[in-house]
Amino acid sequence: MNDRFARLTLMRLAEPGDAVMGRLVAAHGPEGALAQIRAGRLDAGFARWFAGTRRRGAAGTAGDETALDDDAAVKLDRILASWTARLETADPDRDLADGERIGARLIVPGDPEWPTQLDDLGDSRPHALWLHGEANLRFSCVRSVAIVGSRAVTPYGTHVATEFGAGLSERGYGVVSGGAYGVDGAAHRGALVCDAPTVAVLACGADVTYPTAHHDLFAAVRTQGLLVSECPMGVRPTRPRFLVRNRLIAALSRGTLVVEAAVRSGALNTAGHATELNRHLAAVPGPVTSETSAGCHRLIRQGAATCVTTPAEMIELVGAVGGDLAPEPRGPVFPRDQLSPETRRVLEAVPTRAGAGPAIIALAAGVDLDTVLSCLGGLAAAGYVERVPRGWRLRPSPPSGPP
Amino acid sequence: MNDRFARLTLMRLAEPGDAVMGRLVAAHGPEGALAQIRAGRLDAGFARWFAGTRRRGAAGTAGDETALDDDAAVKLDRILASWTARLETADPDRDLADGERIGARLIVPGDPEWPTQLDDLGDSRPHALWLHGEANLRFSCVRSVAIVGSRAVTPYGTHVATEFGAGLSERGYGVVSGGAYGVDGAAHRGALVCDAPTVAVLACGADVTYPTAHHDLFAAVRTQGLLVSECPMGVRPTRPRFLVRNRLIAALSRGTLVVEAAVRSGALNTAGHATELNRHLAAVPGPVTSETSAGCHRLIRQGAATCVTTPAEMIELVGAVGGDLAPEPRGPVFPRDQLSPETRRVLEAVPTRAGAGPAIIALAAGVDLDTVLSCLGGLAAAGYVERVPRGWRLRPSPPSGPP
Repeated sequence: MNDRFARLTLMRLAEPGDAVMGRLVAAHGPEGALAQIRAGRLDAGFARWFAGTRRRGAAGTAGDETALDDDAAVKLDRILASWTARLETADPDRDLADGERIGARLIVPGDPEWPTQLDDLGDSRPHALWLHGEANLRFSCVRSVAIVGSRAVTPYGTHVATEFGAGLSERGYGVVSGGAYGVDGAAHRGALVCDAPTVAVLACGADVTYPTAHHDLFAAVRTQGLLVSECPMGVRPTRPRFLVRNRLIAALSRGTLVVEAAVRSGALNTAGHATELNRHLAAVPGPVTSETSAGCHRLIRQGAATCVTTPAEMIELVGAVGGDLAPEPRGPVFPRDQLSPETRRVLEAVPTRAGAGPAIIALAAGVDLDTVLSCLGGLAAAGYVERVPRGWRLRPSPPSGPP
Repeated sequence: MNDRFARLTLMRLAEPGDAVMGRLVAAHGPEGALAQIRAGRLDAGFARWFAGTRRRGAAGTAGDETALDDDAAVKLDRILASWTARLETADPDRDLADGERIGARLIVPGDPEWPTQLDDLGDSRPHALWLHGEANLRFSCVRSVAIVGSRAVTPYGTHVATEFGAGLSERGYGVVSGGAYGVDGAAHRGALVCDAPTVAVLACGADVTYPTAHHDLFAAVRTQGLLVSECPMGVRPTRPRFLVRNRLIAALSRGTLVVEAAVRSGALNTAGHATELNRHLAAVPGPVTSETSAGCHRLIRQGAATCVTTPAEMIELVGAVGGDLAPEPRGPVFPRDQLSPETRRVLEAVPTRAGAGPAIIALAAGVDLDTVLSCLGGLAAAGYVERVPRGWRLRPSPPSGPP
């Protein structure tokens, strides 16, 4: 239980995604990291690692190594100070009680429900996750797709996000999103109408409803799926927390689909995380006249995202190689498609109303008389042409559908 | 002049794009080819070449070579018979008179106005072209883009085709299309409103207005640009002629842009020609809910076409490498984008109404006190925050635009 208490404390000390804290935990475990922070002194090896990251960050600038190391030491002291300053606000007992009160549960790495794909995040892996809902996080995400996009969505984006949310759910894929207005909400709703679990990763505490107008949506998600948060209870969403949260959405799923995104959209931040994490990235095209599709088109043009137009195409991307191929879009096949090129040329040369003799038809079609006679026989048998006193003409209603 | 007379006759004997006829002309010249057809006997070398193409066509099927050769001889006799049967209908004098009457001119390979890029068509290069209009074909096509798409166009497709027609014309690119309803007409009209030449390649005689409702459009194209046809005067359009015509649209231009196309659209035939001819191929994305964009999306997904959303992006594709780069789509840059990540974190932690002291802000932001003090100073100077009796708060109207 000490491990969980330590993690709950660390969640209060550092902002989500703080990779310096993550590294300290990776090196010393949550309890060891907490002990060093409480002592107000980080070990020398860690300080050396930190100075190294600063040096690498400054690579290429002419500089005095000692000055850089001094600078790193000052910087690390400041980070430590910001952590220790928050020590007093941490109260794991209260956090656990708050979670219990609303019915949320805490999972930590190593728990059976922990999604191990989050290990791909390295030092920015969350210390723990608050889960609020009926579904199992690991099972809901093992075959899942993230659907992300603009909050300022068009009716087209809402429609497409809902269709993908439903279409992926129907085919057994979990839908991960951010619970926001616009594309996120539509994707969750699409999954919910299919009675499928859906996962909303929040940028605030699991007990905070943001946006508040999604109160009912979140209630439905809890019943069928999960609300997930790496923030401590009661924490409000801020701009940086949204951006940091996006890495979880990308990491939990096999691939990220951008439904609608302007060229400055948080969804493109999630797309970037997906690419960094070697997850599949796809984007739905839209009208080139719509600014909210410009981000999608840029991703497709850059080759960063695959152009995806149906849920089946998304599954082809994230599914088993060769095993989940999407059907090629095909138009209808008309009976006349089955005719040989020569027969089609003859058919084109047969007049509509007054009949024409085989010699005239041969001239018009540019084929010889024997060919015309044999083709006309076949076309008559198939119902395309008919005999009239002056030769042959098209039948008013041929066997094909559209001409 | 005999060369022109012979070519006019050959245009009457064979359908446009007949590569067997093209090969005969390539081997013996138009007059030599015509002499052999008139004599009713093709030379032995040509018959051997023809038998060779049949053998190569039948490669892989177990077969008796002699039988294949006999079959080829029969087939070639039939082709020759279909040509000779049309000899009586050919009347170059009348064709020239008809052309003169409507004000059209005939150009043949070697003429100054002949677009040499048509040589890429090999044996299916047209024997000659009827031109009807004020513009110079060679100059109009040397820097040109083909805009093609469905006849059954949506308002979106009409809008986009017109915008591309106008946008490419404004930037000095000729617009080549097929003069049909839908995308073709919109592309021509877009070029016409920019007073730019535009080229309509017809699937019928240059004196035939098809579709008839495009009478006024064709008149405008003739005034500013050109109607082009490889068909003899008076010939009606047929389905095969449309398909064969498409190769000219692809060959005349540097690249083909598919604006809207269902998965069964003649525009995809033009796209195929563009690819075969090593021309650039691009497609405009559209709503995934629109069947008339499905062909475009398939081309993009297959990697056959580049996703293009603006005329500038099309010119980037067909223009000089590195010299005609399209601007990257970018959103607006807000003043707060200039702030350092640390300053932004502090700004996020400053309350809206009641002020907060630096220590509280430091805790909320997760940075140390020194950093907060220095960031608050900068933020106050830039107009983001203001002092109030109880500390600092956000200014009601910060320097940024949207929050």
